[in-house]
Amino acid sequence: MRVRNKPWAPELIEAHPEKIVEKGQAFKGQWNQRFEKEQPIFIEVGTGKGQFIINMAKKYPQYNFIGIEIQKTVIAIALKNALEEEIPNLQFLYADGAELTDYFEDGEVSKVFLNFSDPWPKTRHEKRRLTFKTFLKVYEQILVKNGEVEFKTDNQGLFEYSLYSLNNYGMTFEGVWLDLHNSEENEDNVETEYEHKFSAKGQPIYKLKAHF
Amino acid sequence: MRVRNKPWAPELIEAHPEKIVEKGQAFKGQWNQRFEKEQPIFIEVGTGKGQFIINMAKKYPQYNFIGIEIQKTVIAIALKNALEEEIPNLQFLYADGAELTDYFEDGEVSKVFLNFSDPWPKTRHEKRRLTFKTFLKVYEQILVKNGEVEFKTDNQGLFEYSLYSLNNYGMTFEGVWLDLHNSEENEDNVETEYEHKFSAKGQPIYKLKAHF
Ligand SMILES: C[S@@+](CC[C@H](N)C(=O)[O-])C[C@H]1O[C@@H](n2cnc3c(N)ncnc32)[C@H](O)[C@@H]1O
Ligand SMILES: C[S@@+](CC[C@H](N)C(=O)[O-])C[C@H]1O[C@@H](n2cnc3c(N)ncnc32)[C@H](O)[C@@H]1O
Repeated sequence: MRVRNKPWAPELIEAHPEKIVEKGQAFKGQWNQRFEKEQPIFIEVGTGKGQFIINMAKKYPQYNFIGIEIQKTVIAIALKNALEEEIPNLQFLYADGAELTDYFEDGEVSKVFLNFSDPWPKTRHEKRRLTFKTFLKVYEQILVKNGEVEFKTDNQGLFEYSLYSLNNYGMTFEGVWLDLHNSEENEDNVETEYEHKFSAKGQPIYKLKAHF
Repeated sequence: MRVRNKPWAPELIEAHPEKIVEKGQAFKGQWNQRFEKEQPIFIEVGTGKGQFIINMAKKYPQYNFIGIEIQKTVIAIALKNALEEEIPNLQFLYADGAELTDYFEDGEVSKVFLNFSDPWPKTRHEKRRLTFKTFLKVYEQILVKNGEVEFKTDNQGLFEYSLYSLNNYGMTFEGVWLDLHNSEENEDNVETEYEHKFSAKGQPIYKLKAHF
């Protein structure tokens, strides 16, 4: 996602240390202290402008949610959107998904969501895809035993690759949907901003649910 | 595939014992004797009217091919089509895919093709799908070590299920294509009769290549 630089972004982030973390190391193993209730933690890597994680947090108060994003301006927009309401089970972390083992203790996370991750179609950029094996290794380490990954995308090439990559990593599929919006799985679906945009164009949405 | 009964079918089969086997037990472990050359054996389960297996045999003379079909009238049509030319590396077997361990020795087969298998969409018919785990067990047993399965279909539900089923069986994916005809993998593609029909309608063709 390309966004224009927003001059207010760093300031907004600094003004809300109760809602967003810039130095994740400080909370390694202690994320639950940042929430009202101690309960399972679900994270989204590449959270974008936050539509999904905000609505998930509102829909599922029995879980704690952390939206993680590598672009400062983008996560500032997510933060701004989140601040419109009081959502006690939602936090943000400004970080690179590749480094999550620095910010989370082994087994600290209960589920990882990946939504409409950048496709990086060129083979030489394979390593940047959030479903590349080095990323899977990171998720596996911070997740509980048999921890789940839920992945959605509109991108055919990235979905083909991710089926291959998760399978080859040894993950067990729980479900595959090639047209999420016309399936039973859609009943509980919470849309992301990209999902909304692409499905409005009539593109099928793919989903994969798998565990380590 | 539903076909009208053809009175000539049993007679044609009986007239060509050199080309089609009705009692597969007799050749268990000895299939290569039925071919001109001793070379790797590739089978198609649910071969239909034979378009794929006939053209594969012509394209790849370095392999021996066996088309397997459970419907007598249907395999008679495949046989009829095959007899139009001299194809020394092609044979047919009238049999149920569920019983292949009775007809092939362990490791006798080098590759299994499944093309446009009946979808059996109802959950209570899951066991009849040619990618159900009991079928996978049969293929695994008759295949060489790390033997491959190549699966094509136009059916979204069956493809979703098969990704799930092969993954859960512990098979390793080599490639997944969600639109075969618009991919590089299509270069060497040999069409089946169903594939020809469905792709003409503009439906995407799915393909999965995996090994045990
Ligand atoms: C295409 S956007 C999708 C945003 C949102 N998930 C959605 O579905 O609408 C992908 C987002 O992932 C972020 N991203 C890419 N690589 C990342 C990484 N290594 N760590 C964290 N975020 C990353 C990008 O900055 C971008 O905001
Ligand atoms: C939908 S047709 C596809 C035919 C061909 N493979 C194609 O792609 O055009 C499926 C075929 O599989 C056969 N079949 C179904 N179950 C089978 C089984 N258990 N063993 C062998 N053949 C089977 C059916 O009789 C039918 O001819």
